[in-house]
Formats: sequence, C-alpha cells, structure tokens
Amino acid sequence: MSVFNFDIIAESTTTRARAGVIQTARGKVETPVFMPVGTLGTVKSLTPDELTSAGAQIILGNTYHLYLRPGCDVIEQFDGLHKFISWKGPILTDSGGFQVFSLAKLANITEEGVTFQSHIDGSRHLLTPEKAIDIQTCLGSDIIMCLDNCIQHPASHAQTRQALEITSRWAKRCKVAWQAGVNGHNAIFGIVQGGMFKDLREASSEALIAQDFNGFAIGGLSVGEPVETMLEIADFTLPKLPNEKPKYIMGTGTPEDLVELVALGADMFDCVLPTRNARNGQIFRQQGTLNISNAKYRHDTRPLETGCACYTCCNYSRAYLRHLFLAKELLAYRLNSLHNVYFFLNLMKQMREAILADDFESFRKDFYKTLNN
Amino acid sequence: MSVFNFDIIAESTTTRARAGVIQTARGKVETPVFMPVGTLGTVKSLTPDELTSAGAQIILGNTYHLYLRPGCDVIEQFDGLHKFISWKGPILTDSGGFQVFSLAKLANITEEGVTFQSHIDGSRHLLTPEKAIDIQTCLGSDIIMCLDNCIQHPASHAQTRQALEITSRWAKRCKVAWQAGVNGHNAIFGIVQGGMFKDLREASSEALIAQDFNGFAIGGLSVGEPVETMLEIADFTLPKLPNEKPKYIMGTGTPEDLVELVALGADMFDCVLPTRNARNGQIFRQQGTLNISNAKYRHDTRPLETGCACYTCCNYSRAYLRHLFLAKELLAYRLNSLHNVYFFLNLMKQMREAILADDFESFRKDFYKTLNN
Repeated sequence: MSVFNFDIIAESTTTRARAGVIQTARGKVETPVFMPVGTLGTVKSLTPDELTSAGAQIILGNTYHLYLRPGCDVIEQFDGLHKFISWKGPILTDSGGFQVFSLAKLANITEEGVTFQSHIDGSRHLLTPEKAIDIQTCLGSDIIMCLDNCIQHPASHAQTRQALEITSRWAKRCKVAWQAGVNGHNAIFGIVQGGMFKDLREASSEALIAQDFNGFAIGGLSVGEPVETMLEIADFTLPKLPNEKPKYIMGTGTPEDLVELVALGADMFDCVLPTRNARNGQIFRQQGTLNISNAKYRHDTRPLETGCACYTCCNYSRAYLRHLFLAKELLAYRLNSLHNVYFFLNLMKQMREAILADDFESFRKDFYKTLNN
Repeated sequence: MSVFNFDIIAESTTTRARAGVIQTARGKVETPVFMPVGTLGTVKSLTPDELTSAGAQIILGNTYHLYLRPGCDVIEQFDGLHKFISWKGPILTDSGGFQVFSLAKLANITEEGVTFQSHIDGSRHLLTPEKAIDIQTCLGSDIIMCLDNCIQHPASHAQTRQALEITSRWAKRCKVAWQAGVNGHNAIFGIVQGGMFKDLREASSEALIAQDFNGFAIGGLSVGEPVETMLEIADFTLPKLPNEKPKYIMGTGTPEDLVELVALGADMFDCVLPTRNARNGQIFRQQGTLNISNAKYRHDTRPLETGCACYTCCNYSRAYLRHLFLAKELLAYRLNSLHNVYFFLNLMKQMREAILADDFESFRKDFYKTLNN
C-alpha cells in the first residue's frame, strides 16, 4: 500500500478552487502547489536550500533528460535522484513523453512504444510504457507519470483520437508495470490527452479513471493554443476527474493562468516560465512583468518588487541587477531566478490562504486590480 | 587621520612569514589574506553571504571595469560599491592600471595619464592618477591603489625604468589627490614596479617608501615569467619594503605560489584563479587539482575533496558536479567556484595558524607532501 494520500481541507464556495494536502513518503505538499522544474537534476542556477527558503515543497525532474544525461546507471549509485541532487523533499518526474515528441529527433510510434534519437548525440532509444516506469522508479520519484502520446497543435480529431487511445493503452501498461515493481512508496498519475476536443478529453478521462490512478494530470495544454481555448478545455475536463484525487495541469503557466486554473479546481502546476524568463531578464511581479535590461532602471535603487520578501529583493536593487544582467554575470541569472521562483510560490501560497479563508473571489479581483494598475 | 592600521601579531622564526591584523573602517582582516576578485561588482556566480561563509574577509573590485560598467554615476546612487553589491566587509580596489594596459585598446601614455579605448564600446577615456583616486573614492573603497604604469613581459631595462619612473611620479600625485579628498576612512597603497630587474625593483621601492603609504604592493609579477623568476623578484623586493606595513603581491597565484610568497613575507594576495578555473572545471585540492569533466568521475560518489568542509563538498558528489558541468548547468560554475574559493581561503587560514604556532616550516613540508602524494 502506498503512503500517498490526498486530503481536501477547504473548498471555495464561489469557485471550484480547493486547498489540500498531499502526503508523500518524503513529506507533505500543500495544494494548490507550483512545482519548480529541475530538468537535469537542478532547478537552473539554484540550490535546494534556496528553493526551500523560497517556499518550494516539491520539484519536478525530467525523465527524458535524466535518462540521456547522466543516465540511470549514475543515478542508481545514489539510490535515486534525491541524494544525487541533494533535495530531500518530494520529486515528481514526468514520463519523458512530452520531450520525446518535442525535443528528440525522428520520434516513431508503434503500439510497443516510441523510438527516438537523442537530441544530444543522435543515439537511438526505445521508450515503452514499462521502461518509462522503470526509469522513474530508478530515479526514486515520489510521483510517477504515465507515458503519454503527445501530439502537435493543431491536430485533427482523428489524429487526436488515435493518440489518446494509445495513451490509454499505455496508461494501463504503466499501471501494471508500477504495481509489479517493488514500490509502495510512490504514486502514479495518469495523463488525460484529447487535444482541443471536448469529446476526446471526456473519453480520455473515462479511460483513465477506470484504472484508478493516485492522481490525474491534464497534458497537451499550453502547446500553442489561445489562452481562452486552454481555459475552456481545462474548465471542461477538470470536473470530469474525481474530486478526491489531485488534479495536475502540466506545463502551465503564467500567473494569470495559475489563478484561473486554480479557480477551475486544479491543484498542481509546473512550468519553466519563472526560471527561463529570469534568464532572459523578465521579472514577474504583482504589478506585471518588468524587463531588467530596460535603461530606465539604470539608477533605480528600488528592489525588483517593493515589499517582496525574497532574498534578491531583500538585498539588491534594480540598478545592480540590471548591471549584472547587461554584463552577463552568472549572478544575474541566479538572483532573477530566485525572485521569479519565489513570486510563483508565493502566489500559490496567497491563493491557498484565500481558499482557506473562503475569500478566493476577492483575492482574484485584487490580483487583477494590482496587475492592471 | 585614517582608521587604517596594521599589527603584526606573530612572526615565523624559520621563514619571513608573519601573521597580522589589518584594521579598516569596515572591520578587521586577518593576514596573510587571500582576496577573492569581484571584477564587476560580483565574485563571479557567488553571493556575499556565500563568500562570508567560505571565510572571505575582504574582496577586490576592479576600477577599470566598474568605471566602464555600470559607471560611477550609478554606484554614487548607493554611496559606493558596498551597498550596491551588498557586501558589508572591506573592499580593496585596484587602480585600473593593469586593465588599461592589458584589456583596453590603444593605451597611450603621457606624463598626464593614459588614454585608452574601452574594450566594450571603443569609447575613449583618459585615466590620470587623480582620476584613479577619484573613481576609487566614489567606489567607497577601503584600500585604494595608486595608478601604475604596467608593461609587457619581457621588457628592456630602459623601458622598465621609464615605466617605474612614471609610476613613481604618478604615485606622488595619487597621494596628494588622496590627501586632498574628504577621506580619512580608507587607506592608500603604493605599487612597486620594476619588472624582472632587481636594481629597478629597489629604486621603485625606495621612491614609494619616501611617500609613506599605508601599505605596499608589488605589481608586474605573474605576467608570464617563470615561477622561479617571480619568486626571486618577490624574495628580493619584499624585504626592501617596511616590515610594519602590509605587503601585497598583486594578481598571484597558485596554492604553491601563495605558500612560497607567505614564506617570503607577503601578507595579501588576490587572484582570479579559483573562480576562473572553477568555471573551466578545474578543482583545487590539497592533493592537487582535478578536472571534473574527466570520465573517471562519472560514477564517483565522493565529494570533490575528502574532508573538505565547504558547502559543495558537504552536499554534492563528483558524479553530480561532473553531470552539471557537462550539461553546462549554471549551478556547476557556482558549486565549483564555492569550493575553489573556500580552498584558497582555507589555505590562508591554515598558513596563519601555522605562523601563530611558529610551525610554518612543517606546514609547508606537509603541504608539499600531500600535494605530491
């Protein structure tokens, strides 16, 4: 039996937002939660200590990347990713599906799995549902994701149906492989596909629910569709998933997306936005983003965001951060990332507090008021 | 009157090594001391907190770099470099002389000063002794260096003599400019030049001593000459300088250089070696360097250096650091830098303890025994 558990402790009476607690073998996660992305075993430029200080409870590792580099043979030496990267909290790993279809070359699908060429050295690999579970088990992941067949956007109804049907059959094989393993310490989540078609999202949800996963993710969103479409599909799909299970929207999104998706009942999120944009000089703030390279910050002695309690804002000015960024100093990427990650984590915390106080609607109003001021 | 003070608290009876305390307006510095280099207002990739944890007491800022970027107009907004970069301890700034002659384009010397073109945007500037003091005063430096005329190696006796004579006249003007300023809170050091010629080193020393600086630096070493020559010139020059003043060897060196130069009576050092080499994957250790990209570390679960108390060694393995380095992850440069800086600072601390115990000779023997084992 898995130690994994999910309890809802508060629900908004005016939206579908809810606050919960996920229990894992490596500790609790309070939801709604944002998971910083540690693609290659590092949330780019930051240490685990900094992530913890910023409020991170759980991070994400990418199976595709870690399988190719450094490889499972290395991570096995450390009994998994946690000890290898020195992160003590829970880790969720994706299945590699998304990267195989977006990053790798010549991905070729059969019923068995997907063959692809590494984007690093062109070496050929076969990723099957069973292998995706094996790799994630080797990584010591606390939340394992099923292998899914991700498609390009836009895609036809027929293509999308075919992909979701393979995804459903692979999910079944993933569950079997996971159950056959020695693990009782982790959880397995299914991934709903179905593109931008509601009937297919419904069919995918039903197929996965029948297999009783520990949680359910919605994949294939934020792939280039308009925000309205993304929200419409999430709005349609989230209620189809069992309320007593965590609901995870993969690879999303902007602060506005997160607020809207929490309102629609989503519990978990991951996105490279805070770290990637930090490295490009874009800073997230309640008042909206700023680009630190802008000449108007040359003499600006204020922190990135007035009132922000992050390490960067407590110690550094816009003028200094602009100087570091223009000089391409490594510290720039780090201090910007620290602020952005803190901003995302703090936004989730604020939403959770609003849900606990059953005050989510006024939080949302204030959020947009500050943003557009 | 300056608060600057230097006390020698112990002297080795078998070498010229000595341990002292430099008092500055921003706190004490225990010597012999290594000063991490914060060229552009950041010791590359590290925060001031990390430097302090690693044992840094004083850091160096480069006048040439900071004058060009972000410029004094920006740093003035913060009443100097300390607040701008969030470093509370003492800062020594160089005069810009070395960079004008090594980095800038078309450096052209007259008695007045040196004109040069920025290596960044080609803009033309004139650096005079008075301006070098002005800039360093604006930076709020705790230890100001005189503008010196640095020459290429090798150089003829005549060229070298000419350069040191300009350096001496500039030193006089620097002292006058410094005295005329509002500052009583900082110190000013003269820089001995004279290339690889002992008679010129002696002449330069005498000219500077006549002007009674707070401390004396030896410049123009580690510029491409054999180590033996560097040590021979240092061995010759160091005793010519007043023993009651701090003696600073600029831009040096390897751990072996530091041990030898401390034995010869030097008190202060700065070098980019620990941080630059860290970014290239070279790790300093008591047993000698290792290159973290080496395939033999692929599965190595040991820290970079067994027994090392630095943050990197306390938390990470060679296998992880190799993975980060090969993946060009920003965290690699940071964790490697942290170890190397710690190594240099700890080496100085060990030397100081050996001097205090009048045990420097056996420390030196052990140092080479471990290194060559």
